[in-house]
This record gives sequence, C-alpha cells and structure tokens, in this order.
Amino acid sequence: MQSPRVEAPLRTLMGPGPLNIHPRVYQALGSPVIGHLDPAYLKVLDQVAELLRMVFKTKNRITNAAPGTGTSGMEACVANLIEPGDPVLCCVHGYFGDRIRQMAERQEAKITVIEGEWGKPTDPQAVEKELKKNRYKVIGLVHAETSTGVQQPMEDIVRLAKEHGAMLLLDAVTSLGGVDVRVDEWGVDAAYACSQKCIGCAAGLSPVTFSDRAVESVRKRKHPVRSWYLDITLLDKYWGTDRVYHHTSSSTLNYGLLEALRLIEEEGLENRIRRHTRNHKALVAGVEAMGLEMLVAPEHRLPSLNTVKIPSGIDDVKVRSYLLETYNLEIGGGLGALKGKVWRVGLMGYSSSAENILFFLSAVSQALALQGFKADISAGLAAATSTLKA
Amino acid sequence: MQSPRVEAPLRTLMGPGPLNIHPRVYQALGSPVIGHLDPAYLKVLDQVAELLRMVFKTKNRITNAAPGTGTSGMEACVANLIEPGDPVLCCVHGYFGDRIRQMAERQEAKITVIEGEWGKPTDPQAVEKELKKNRYKVIGLVHAETSTGVQQPMEDIVRLAKEHGAMLLLDAVTSLGGVDVRVDEWGVDAAYACSQKCIGCAAGLSPVTFSDRAVESVRKRKHPVRSWYLDITLLDKYWGTDRVYHHTSSSTLNYGLLEALRLIEEEGLENRIRRHTRNHKALVAGVEAMGLEMLVAPEHRLPSLNTVKIPSGIDDVKVRSYLLETYNLEIGGGLGALKGKVWRVGLMGYSSSAENILFFLSAVSQALALQGFKADISAGLAAATSTLKA
Repeated sequence: MQSPRVEAPLRTLMGPGPLNIHPRVYQALGSPVIGHLDPAYLKVLDQVAELLRMVFKTKNRITNAAPGTGTSGMEACVANLIEPGDPVLCCVHGYFGDRIRQMAERQEAKITVIEGEWGKPTDPQAVEKELKKNRYKVIGLVHAETSTGVQQPMEDIVRLAKEHGAMLLLDAVTSLGGVDVRVDEWGVDAAYACSQKCIGCAAGLSPVTFSDRAVESVRKRKHPVRSWYLDITLLDKYWGTDRVYHHTSSSTLNYGLLEALRLIEEEGLENRIRRHTRNHKALVAGVEAMGLEMLVAPEHRLPSLNTVKIPSGIDDVKVRSYLLETYNLEIGGGLGALKGKVWRVGLMGYSSSAENILFFLSAVSQALALQGFKADISAGLAAATSTLKA
Repeated sequence: MQSPRVEAPLRTLMGPGPLNIHPRVYQALGSPVIGHLDPAYLKVLDQVAELLRMVFKTKNRITNAAPGTGTSGMEACVANLIEPGDPVLCCVHGYFGDRIRQMAERQEAKITVIEGEWGKPTDPQAVEKELKKNRYKVIGLVHAETSTGVQQPMEDIVRLAKEHGAMLLLDAVTSLGGVDVRVDEWGVDAAYACSQKCIGCAAGLSPVTFSDRAVESVRKRKHPVRSWYLDITLLDKYWGTDRVYHHTSSSTLNYGLLEALRLIEEEGLENRIRRHTRNHKALVAGVEAMGLEMLVAPEHRLPSLNTVKIPSGIDDVKVRSYLLETYNLEIGGGLGALKGKVWRVGLMGYSSSAENILFFLSAVSQALALQGFKADISAGLAAATSTLKA
C-alpha cells in the first residue's frame, strides 16, 4: 500500500510568513544538489554573505545564514552572547520578545524584564531607568514584533545602549529586507532574521550578523557556548576562510536565498523599503475606509505586518477558514494575548503587492458579510487605490 | 552593479553526502510554499512522521524531522537526554562519536570515553567492563561512522545496555534508509539521521525518534533543556496533536522529504537495504580487483560509505581535484585522523547505482594513472559487474 502523493495547494500567503516567493526563487531552489565543500558552492556562500551584509547595512565579517529557521538565529544570538550569571535586560512587548527572555533563562542569565503593552513599542524611558540602576551586558530588543505588528523606534534605545556600554541583541525577523535595518549605524551587536519573510525565500535559513565587539565577548566567555550546532565560532570556521566542515549546508536553500537576495539587489534595497511602506499605507487606508481598525498607533506600525482588530461579535476562526477554503487565502490569527483579537496580515517581499491588497480587502469584506458585518468595500478599494497611486 | 547568477554545476555526488536526488524529489522541493499551520500542510507532516516510523522501524510517538541538518538532530538527542552531572558513556571510534562527546561536554555531563581505533567498531567487551564498573544514564553510540566507513555491530551492546538499564543514544546519520536500523527491536532511546544521505532528499532536515522512556526522562529533568530551538517537548507540541507554533517549518524541505520517503516505500525498505548491500559489494570487488585496499575489515564495512585507502605516494588532493574538474565527480576526503589517508566513497539512496560504481572505478583509474599508479581497471570492472549480476 502506497502513501498518497498530496500536492500542495496553491495559496495566496498573507500571514506572518512564509509568503509567496518569486518564480526565480523557485527555480533556484531546484538547483542541482551540490556538496557543501565544493569550490563552486563555497563561492555561493561568499555571495550570500556579501548580499546579507548589504541588507543588514553592516561590514560585520561574521554575517551568514544559520542552518535553521529564524528561531535558530535567535538562539545563535542569545546562546553565544549570554552566559550564566550575565545581567540581561529583556524588552518584552510581544510574543517574540518573550521568546528571547525564555532563551536567556535557559542560559541562566540574570534577567530583568521591561514588560510593555502588546501593541506598543518598548518605552525608552523605562530602558533608561533600568540602565541607570544596573549594569547590563546585553539588551534584548525586537525591532519588528511579529505578534503585534509594532515597529520599535530605535533612536533613543540605540543611544542609551551606547551611553551605558550594553550590547544590543536585535530581532529583525519581520523587518530585514523590507524595513530599514541599520546594524552598523545603530551599533547592533547581534541580529537575526529569517529567509521566508521580507527576504522572499522559502523557510529554513536564518541570516545572522555579529559585531566585532560581540565576537570578542564570545572569545572571552568563561563557559563554552551551550549549543554546539549554533556555536557562532564553529559556524564561522565553515562560512569564513577556514572552510572547516561543521554541518552539511543545504545547497537547495542557499541557492534559493542567493536568488532572493539578488532580487533585492536588482530592485534596490531603498526602493524595496519604499514599496513595503507604500503598500502598507494602502492596505491601512483600505482597512480603515472599510470600517475596520488597526491595533497599532500610526507612528509605530510595522509596514511588513499589519494587525487588524477583529470587530466585536465576529468569529475569528470562521473568517480565516472561509478565506482559506473559498479563496485559498491565508492570513494569520493572533498569537498569545492577541489570540482571537486581531488578524495579522503580511505584506512582505514578493507578496507585498497591489493585487494582494485588493484581494485581501475584497475577500475579507465577503467573509465579514457572512457574519452580518457590512464593510464599506467601495470606500476601502478606492482609498487603497488612491494611496497606491500617490 | 548586479551580482552574477552562478548556476550550480551538475556533479555526480559520491562523497559522504549530499548525494544526487531523484527527479521526483526535485519536483517536490519545488512545491508551492505553504503556511506551517495550514491544515493541508499539517497532513503532510503526519505523513512524514508515519513514514519515518517505517524507516526507523519504530512505533515511537515522538518521531519527526528536526528543523536543521543531521547535527541538529544529534544536538536534539544529546541536549534533551543529558543534563549536568549525568553519567554518560561515549563510544568514540571516529569523528562523529567524538562530536557526541563534545556536545555532551557542553551539557556538563560526567563523561567516560571508550576510545576505539578509527576504522574499527567499538569493542563490546570494553563497554561491558565500563558498565560493570559504573552506572550510566546514557550510552552514546554511532551506528554508521561517516568518518571511517565502519558499521557498528549492535547485538552485544544492545544486550548490555538493557542489562544495565542505560539509555541508548544512536547516530544513524549514514545508515537510516539504506542500512538496517531497528529502533524498537534494539531498544534505542533516541536516534537521529539526516535527510540528504540514504533517505535521498536535500540537506536541511534531521529525522529523530525518542522512546517513551526517553520522553519520561526528559519530563523528569531537573534543569530545563539548554536549547529552546531543539527542545523536543516544544517540537512535539508542534508535530504532535497540539499543533502549537514553535518554528516556521520549511514546507519546501518537508515536501521533498515526503517524496523521498514515498520512494523508499515504493521500492520497499528491505529491497532498498539489499540494493545498498549489493552495490557496496560490487564497489569493493572492483576496488580490490583494481589493486586498491579497503580501510575496514569485511565484517564491519558500512554499505553506504566506503573508505578506500589512498595508495602510498599518491596525492589525495590532486586526485580529488582531477575527478571534480575532469568528470564533475565528487568523492570525499578523509576527516580528522584519516585526512589524506582514505577516500570516502558514498553509495546512498538514488546514488547507489551500477552506473555510479563503474563511473567511479573508471574515473579513479585515470586519476591514478596520472600519478604513475597503474590500476587494473579491466579486472576491476569485471569484478564489479560479476558481483552486480550475482
């Protein structure tokens, strides 16, 4: 008896990621498999590293794609920078800030948490107060909180981290490649992202970058890094000039990532950031003109991930199932404290497009109508379109 | 200025892995990207888990593909089973046994090492002696040592582990899917493999399985698992019935893995194991008839990975570069203590074929001739062919 082959349905992906990817990335994922120490493949890794430096806006030597999903990059940053007893300040205003805290706990760090409201960024004044009270080795911060759709303003916290000599560990999972991330200018010491969001590839790799100061702090550790798989010194011995075997790098994923990065280069990173911002504004204009509300205040909205409040009385799961079954359209539900309260609508990479915006507004208006909510779809489409043209 | 697109060269892969993959696996890797919580995708994960139970020969509920390469599976097994102070017996007779030891060190285990000769399996008498002396929580053992081409006989060590109540942690990276691995019959408590060797997929996933006893021991841990990313309890909350988000599972890789597993099911696991054995014997017959020698004694040879001694006076790197440049043929060099002393010739999955055997023998005879070594290629081809027909 043979297990059936089940073809993947063709979805329009507008959740928190993965998103739809460009046909050229599919082609690249189909590249002939090649050995992880093949000279031709090592050149590909060099290209990937160089283009990742471009999107991270960094000169950091240690910049590569860790062999796992975005969470592996988070663990690479946390496990390498933090050792038992280290004082760590965790800024938590959503699910992923809390995940950093959980990982730091497993390193037995001495953790102080700044708990913020979900849907708002971390308050720099709270950070300042803590930094004046205690010395911290590392500040854990989420630039783009995927659970709430909040973009953290960086200016004040960056200044405070510099003033107090704390290292900055930054989650850029939902920003890198679509929202401005300035690793060197901000003085970020360790940052991580993922392959399947604004970067526009399939899931399975996690771009990471480490400053010289971070590398030096890893070198001076008293205890070995608790993860062998994600020990950045060992990863660097493979990605760097030594070329010492550490893991069997997936050529499938890295050829895909390279093509996704080449598409960013072709479009121009700044153009791409502008496209993400413009499409985000068009979506919001449409959503609000339809009579729905956004969770986040305008000045803190993340262009790549839009959190739309679910109107009271509307059944979240029914709407999302309807969209999936009727239109093959995936949007995200709320995570943690926001479960059942918001939809998470991703506009990232190849998927950040005018057609996806109009499709989402139209489809959700039909889903809402079934539950007696009359969205003003004419006004929504008009508002989105005029913003797109602006 | 645009970075060049560099197409992957089309190699014949006969190293330690990755190997060439079946066209149907390439097709599956090109499946439309789909969300990690999509009901259609969750069914795919169920299929993957069920077929992995078939190749592991287990009923273990916790059987899945960890989100990383084989080394991530090693870390998942070591980091979940072992906590600080645990007495662990590491059987080291090659590079990967030593890697288990290094990972156990990072868990601060109390480690005893049985050092064996590279090219020979671990001596069960040495294991018995240690088990009689001390109580061990875990025995770390490599079933198929990728660095030496040794297959560990399991019968005695399996019996000893049972008698002494120690848990067995098994590396099946180069055996699973091509060499017999019997998790339940042997009483293995945690085992891991990779997607890109005998299983026949691209790199990036690591099949793992945990016995009920192992799960119970994780539940009773005094310290949290040091890796959040590879915490098997969290991984199981996603792969199991709870379906709680843990990481963004790569649909690209899992559709590929499913198709590779379906190909194993179609061929029949026992037929596939016989094919690997027959092709291995044909390769050895050819190699020996040509005037070359194998590193490992006949009774301990691993069918999937063949270690051929480099004749004295022959320049290893020159031969491998010649094969790669002239024939697009990749074979592996020696690792660690065997660097420059052996070639590692992989016959795994789709790549374990008559054409690859004849191609390897012919090509290597030409490479050796350039350095004045006259291999008897006529005898080699005849011996391989008669073994293939037997």
